[in-house]
Amino acid sequence: MTHRERAAQMLADAGIVLTERDELEISDLGLGRFEEVGLSLVVYENNERYCAKELVLLSHQLCPEHRHPPVGADPGKQETFRVRTGEVTLFVDGHGEMTLRPGDQFTIAPDTLHWFRAGDEGAIISEFSSRSRDEHDVFSDPRIVR
Amino acid sequence: MTHRERAAQMLADAGIVLTERDELEISDLGLGRFEEVGLSLVVYENNERYCAKELVLLSHQLCPEHRHPPVGADPGKQETFRVRTGEVTLFVDGHGEMTLRPGDQFTIAPDTLHWFRAGDEGAIISEFSSRSRDEHDVFSDPRIVR
Repeated sequence: MTHRERAAQMLADAGIVLTERDELEISDLGLGRFEEVGLSLVVYENNERYCAKELVLLSHQLCPEHRHPPVGADPGKQETFRVRTGEVTLFVDGHGEMTLRPGDQFTIAPDTLHWFRAGDEGAIISEFSSRSRDEHDVFSDPRIVR
Repeated sequence: MTHRERAAQMLADAGIVLTERDELEISDLGLGRFEEVGLSLVVYENNERYCAKELVLLSHQLCPEHRHPPVGADPGKQETFRVRTGEVTLFVDGHGEMTLRPGDQFTIAPDTLHWFRAGDEGAIISEFSSRSRDEHDVFSDPRIVR
């Protein structure tokens, strides 16, 4: 199976229905080690006021440390992670590492360093947030490009 | 089963996990005919910038016509409905009636009249929106109180 097919299968197994209008994006964050570092995502809606995505992590896959800085009048993206399936280790600067399981959620303040990694079974996370401007994300690893 | 138990069962059947921290709210909108008019909902997050909820409708249950008016500097709630299970008839002023099935979504502009009703099997709808201020909603039926 391709990476895209694996992510699509995880969503289907969780009962999350996609249509032909949904785009399942696969990102290795430019590092070329997708199975270890990267994520798959579906952006349901991203407008001036709010954003909603589904994030899919393969087993032990890491979304590495980054923050969402202010952009113009926007104080930076604020985001709420709600775990749907699997187990997620979430690090948030000032809060340390926490383990989130299905039904657990956490809201990350703007411009705050965070990273997250899935457990053995991979994970699906619903992300609710203010407007998403991925191109402005600041990753701690300078090799990462979005 | 109570109304709450029925809504909780529908969420569980859809693989949507709630925890003890989640509150499943049952609303008959003050009309006392919950099975016909009303809805159940879980508010995952509602802050100054965005809001996310899960809405549950029983078979043929109606959320009656209303709009989200401007409140101070807020131009009114903008909301995106994404159907997770079941079939939903959604009416939006200026767009008429449409049928939404799992994976279908529609974004409703602020201050725009709309109503929605579930089909035979009931429905679960994920709602992504700007801040929710339910107490300001304007329902076309003056008997309705939130």
